[in-house]
Amino acid sequence: MSHPSLIAVDWGTTGFRLWVLDSCGNTLASIDGPFGMSNLEPSDFGRVLEESLNELGIGQDVPAIICGMAGAAQGWCEAPYLLAPTRLDELGAGAIRVSNTSREVCILPGVKQQSPANVMRGEETQIAGLIHLVPDFHGIVCLPGTHTKWVRVADGAIIEFETCMTGEQFAFLSKASVLSHSMPDDGWSDCAFQAAIRLVADDPAAVPRRLFAIRADMLVAKQTSAQARATLSGLLIGQEFMAVRQYWLDQTVTLIGVSALCELYLTALDIMGASGRVVEVSEITLRGLTAAYQHQQDGIGV
Amino acid sequence: MSHPSLIAVDWGTTGFRLWVLDSCGNTLASIDGPFGMSNLEPSDFGRVLEESLNELGIGQDVPAIICGMAGAAQGWCEAPYLLAPTRLDELGAGAIRVSNTSREVCILPGVKQQSPANVMRGEETQIAGLIHLVPDFHGIVCLPGTHTKWVRVADGAIIEFETCMTGEQFAFLSKASVLSHSMPDDGWSDCAFQAAIRLVADDPAAVPRRLFAIRADMLVAKQTSAQARATLSGLLIGQEFMAVRQYWLDQTVTLIGVSALCELYLTALDIMGASGRVVEVSEITLRGLTAAYQHQQDGIGV
Repeated sequence: MSHPSLIAVDWGTTGFRLWVLDSCGNTLASIDGPFGMSNLEPSDFGRVLEESLNELGIGQDVPAIICGMAGAAQGWCEAPYLLAPTRLDELGAGAIRVSNTSREVCILPGVKQQSPANVMRGEETQIAGLIHLVPDFHGIVCLPGTHTKWVRVADGAIIEFETCMTGEQFAFLSKASVLSHSMPDDGWSDCAFQAAIRLVADDPAAVPRRLFAIRADMLVAKQTSAQARATLSGLLIGQEFMAVRQYWLDQTVTLIGVSALCELYLTALDIMGASGRVVEVSEITLRGLTAAYQHQQDGIGV
Repeated sequence: MSHPSLIAVDWGTTGFRLWVLDSCGNTLASIDGPFGMSNLEPSDFGRVLEESLNELGIGQDVPAIICGMAGAAQGWCEAPYLLAPTRLDELGAGAIRVSNTSREVCILPGVKQQSPANVMRGEETQIAGLIHLVPDFHGIVCLPGTHTKWVRVADGAIIEFETCMTGEQFAFLSKASVLSHSMPDDGWSDCAFQAAIRLVADDPAAVPRRLFAIRADMLVAKQTSAQARATLSGLLIGQEFMAVRQYWLDQTVTLIGVSALCELYLTALDIMGASGRVVEVSEITLRGLTAAYQHQQDGIGV
């Protein structure tokens, strides 16, 4: 392969995505690894990174830039938060250099908000990538996932943001709660999902009693597994929408995330009377990482 | 001890409570066992019961009456549901006799509701005990727990009911979610609990974004573990209250459950402008089981 010039890594709670880039930003190779903050000790990160790069035959002279939970207090090396509102071209300047590595490894900061208190690590880099792609971007970004973020962006900066634990709650309720007996497989019903979104839009307070009803509907009314799983998803996403109403009302929301999940959010936005568009997540993340690296290098050069 | 006459068992999802009673209904011995529907195969129930009774030296001639999840499809032996609205003096008549046991073992039915779909197993027996104690009881019963029930009772019957998974969600969120890092111990803050109930009463839709804020408040604003845990409890119980508003509004609610949990529900009722009283759960459960057994015996005698 042509000469590798930069290692870009999005290192999250449960895994990492690593790209090897040439000097023009082209991807030479990429790896998805199953090791993240939740199953690594701080001292493990360096070894995991070097083992991955050894497999790809990448030398010690290629620098690495990392975003995400690797920079958390329980991660590899803590990268202090930037304080919102914050411009995102400052990400590179806020990066910290990991000590005791022969390779040059830098970790980008996350962003915190004082009131209401909130934190992000990784999403800020994706938003930086979006701004690099669309410099005059102004509006709402939603990043659906384990902890979905809703972010107000203007003038190259994160203005404010909210977080909902919708993905983590869906994983628990569908796989480990009493509701799991009603959804033994991965079946899906678009109709049931849409009906649940509508139900929450009409009566947001009903969600706590509608959750157990998913189990009861199976026992009493013989609902299918596909209906049960889609109803659970619709109730939780619908509830999230009602909690962050001031973010999407009368907006066209930019969605960054796994495409299947973004499709659900598009459906919910449509039912709620708003609209959305999806941006490809890998490209945006890479853009954010490389732009931050470049900015950092320029800074060092000054 | 004086001669044992009846074994009464409340057999739930995660464990059982067993009482040995004499012919006057006095408790001669009792056991709490860690084996419930979630960790027993149907073929295990009989062995677990006999091992417990062997330890107490109880002969095969003493009959047993059981309520709860032992009667579920995944339990010992399925006891079909009564259909709400249903009188509770029919519980004994609806009991099924477990086959292939040398001891006489009967399991009481649960109650199901067609629309909105709902089910209970165990709580109906506690409510039957309440009605046995207060024959003209008329009003709302709340049974806080893993799956909290809100039940409208009149004329000796369950009229309608709702279920909220508040206890199961609290257990997951406090012990296994990202929030668990913010509540490593069992600390508690009454002020934080009350503030969370008030917050939900003012803005019920906010709960999904207030959950992650518990974590963020710890990272950004240095909230204590006690505040975090009590806030989580208050958000979930407050959310439950808003979902079943039509049950407690302008009511004095009768609470049946663990006393510490009932105290939280009393506080929430007070903040919401309603009121409550607590009934001792063991006495009520025993009353329900023995009354159902007696009714069943009378029925057989007819």
